[in-house]
Amino acid sequence: MQRPPARIGEALAAVETPALVVDLDAFEHNLDLMANAVRGSGLALRPHGKAHKCPDIAKAQIARGAVGICCQKVDEAAAFVAAGIDDILLTNEIVAPAKIARLAALARSATIGVLVDDAQPIADLSAAAVQAGGTLDVCVEIDVGAHRCGVAPGAAAVPLAQAIAAAPGLRFRGLHAYHGAAQHLRQPSQRLAAIEAASAMAAQTKALIEAAGVPCPVVTGAGTGTWQLERDSHVYTELQPGSYAFMDADYGRNALAPDEHAFEHSLYVLATVMSTPTPERAIVDAGLKASAFDSGLPQVHAVRGLDYVKASDEHGVLQVDPARGAPALGDRIWLIPGHCDPTVNLYDWIVGMRGERVECVWPVAARGAVG
Amino acid sequence: MQRPPARIGEALAAVETPALVVDLDAFEHNLDLMANAVRGSGLALRPHGKAHKCPDIAKAQIARGAVGICCQKVDEAAAFVAAGIDDILLTNEIVAPAKIARLAALARSATIGVLVDDAQPIADLSAAAVQAGGTLDVCVEIDVGAHRCGVAPGAAAVPLAQAIAAAPGLRFRGLHAYHGAAQHLRQPSQRLAAIEAASAMAAQTKALIEAAGVPCPVVTGAGTGTWQLERDSHVYTELQPGSYAFMDADYGRNALAPDEHAFEHSLYVLATVMSTPTPERAIVDAGLKASAFDSGLPQVHAVRGLDYVKASDEHGVLQVDPARGAPALGDRIWLIPGHCDPTVNLYDWIVGMRGERVECVWPVAARGAVG
Repeated sequence: MQRPPARIGEALAAVETPALVVDLDAFEHNLDLMANAVRGSGLALRPHGKAHKCPDIAKAQIARGAVGICCQKVDEAAAFVAAGIDDILLTNEIVAPAKIARLAALARSATIGVLVDDAQPIADLSAAAVQAGGTLDVCVEIDVGAHRCGVAPGAAAVPLAQAIAAAPGLRFRGLHAYHGAAQHLRQPSQRLAAIEAASAMAAQTKALIEAAGVPCPVVTGAGTGTWQLERDSHVYTELQPGSYAFMDADYGRNALAPDEHAFEHSLYVLATVMSTPTPERAIVDAGLKASAFDSGLPQVHAVRGLDYVKASDEHGVLQVDPARGAPALGDRIWLIPGHCDPTVNLYDWIVGMRGERVECVWPVAARGAVG
Repeated sequence: MQRPPARIGEALAAVETPALVVDLDAFEHNLDLMANAVRGSGLALRPHGKAHKCPDIAKAQIARGAVGICCQKVDEAAAFVAAGIDDILLTNEIVAPAKIARLAALARSATIGVLVDDAQPIADLSAAAVQAGGTLDVCVEIDVGAHRCGVAPGAAAVPLAQAIAAAPGLRFRGLHAYHGAAQHLRQPSQRLAAIEAASAMAAQTKALIEAAGVPCPVVTGAGTGTWQLERDSHVYTELQPGSYAFMDADYGRNALAPDEHAFEHSLYVLATVMSTPTPERAIVDAGLKASAFDSGLPQVHAVRGLDYVKASDEHGVLQVDPARGAPALGDRIWLIPGHCDPTVNLYDWIVGMRGERVECVWPVAARGAVG
């Protein structure tokens, strides 16, 4: 774990760069907006911890009414349980026996859910839960359009639900019906069509499972790009958005319908100009190891005439519009990452700024928890 | 820091995934090949520690004759000095006063070099070195074609060299003339033209500095794609390759001239098949947080008919050729990362395999050392 880039109470100028910085006013606005928009709907809000990997943020979400959080990895869940989070849904399939054993051990001190999309791991999960003396909640993942994991919607899910319901140490909870690809469809009409289709598949599958005599209380899914659609679907019972707390350049490219809530960018990579070799070019100290590049380059925030056009491992190249003056050595540049989740995973610390003052420095406790 | 994914002496099957794995036979072949090819040339080999961030690897390079290592960040250098590496060139400009002070403090216990491409930081570096009671070696960076940092070659470098030579606590060492963009030019003729031009610019600049009465003993640069060209240039005195220890999918796309030495892939992301939802699709547990994607997708190693075609945060989608049988849940897949440096930066541990046995588990001590 690296040295924190700032100390509580310091001024912005003292924050060492590159640093992962959260604008706390925007961040809290986002948390409040989501909590208020779900409260009263009858749905559970279970924000995704893979986006922030940070127990302090999970606690802020739970304090606003979230029932718990989601994770993707056993080691992520372990980090959150160690920090006192006691209700976690691992929205992923786990097949390695050592990981299943660790997951079952966590269920002794927290409510732990996990997914299956194949009969084979059910016996392993059951044996591990019995061995650990706990109970694992299990959902069947169905593929509602993401074409990643998940059995086909409909009849294929029924025998899995029955096998889970019959397995010692396991409790069948329902369906995981997450349409990841829908989050980044740019037009509201595309997202609506995708989630209407997903909702119909989930509803049909739930009906088949219940017709087979297995109660199916939960349908869980949704992300930052579509959560209002799942909320209003009359099918989903639980929402899993994660990125809404931070937002990123890629989510910024989604067109919004008039009735869609807009979240604010709260997550930045704070960088410093370290070289000004020509009037048209400035170099910042944040490159491929300071921001994720799978969804494009970071964007320069709130400065016209400066564009982040190229990255190497430790450098970012800014193109300077000749109409503005070139930045000076030492100038601070705020970058909006292309994709928040893998950017957060690069940092050991999140610096929370209230205006120009460091209010908190949160450990990214589950950074690098790939296992 | 996460739990290590393996223990020394374990079999391959016990390594938890995703894991960053080095094939030690290929790795040592690469280290030996480079060391032997530079030994006797009169040039110094100073491999780049930004590629591996791992003191154990730095020590293996120095044991084979390297004079020390390069780093890009002050916190990287600090991690290597703490592990006993005593000769480090920071191939980067440092402008923040707090970082300059930390760098100067390192020079009390190690030989530390750093770059400048602007007059402004020279006074800060000098004051910090005097304050710390040590000496900082300083090179002037010239832009020999990478168009990143660096002053223009020629006359612009002379006053910087003079100012460094005159500054208390600083020692002018020479020129940093690294052409990063040349490393990935695909054709040998393109790389030759780029390095011939870079060598000419470095030679001319060195002559101007020496004509002004300032000795310029060092010309340092070169990377894995071009090091033989700088070695044979009669201009460069020191070589900085880093990726050669590991290689990656992007370097694999370079065409080689008949006389160019070929390094072997030694670095892999070991992944596990966690879902087999359809005969044409298998999902592995290594996605955007397990490999860098700036230089393309990882490649499946040594298996025909399986292609890594898509990634999300924690998932990789493999397309299965119908002509082969689908992989089974739990199967291990070896992935060659698109770009080694930022991939290594995702992991806390490197697992060294000798055949089917874990021989070492090395901490990536400078992982996340962005500052």
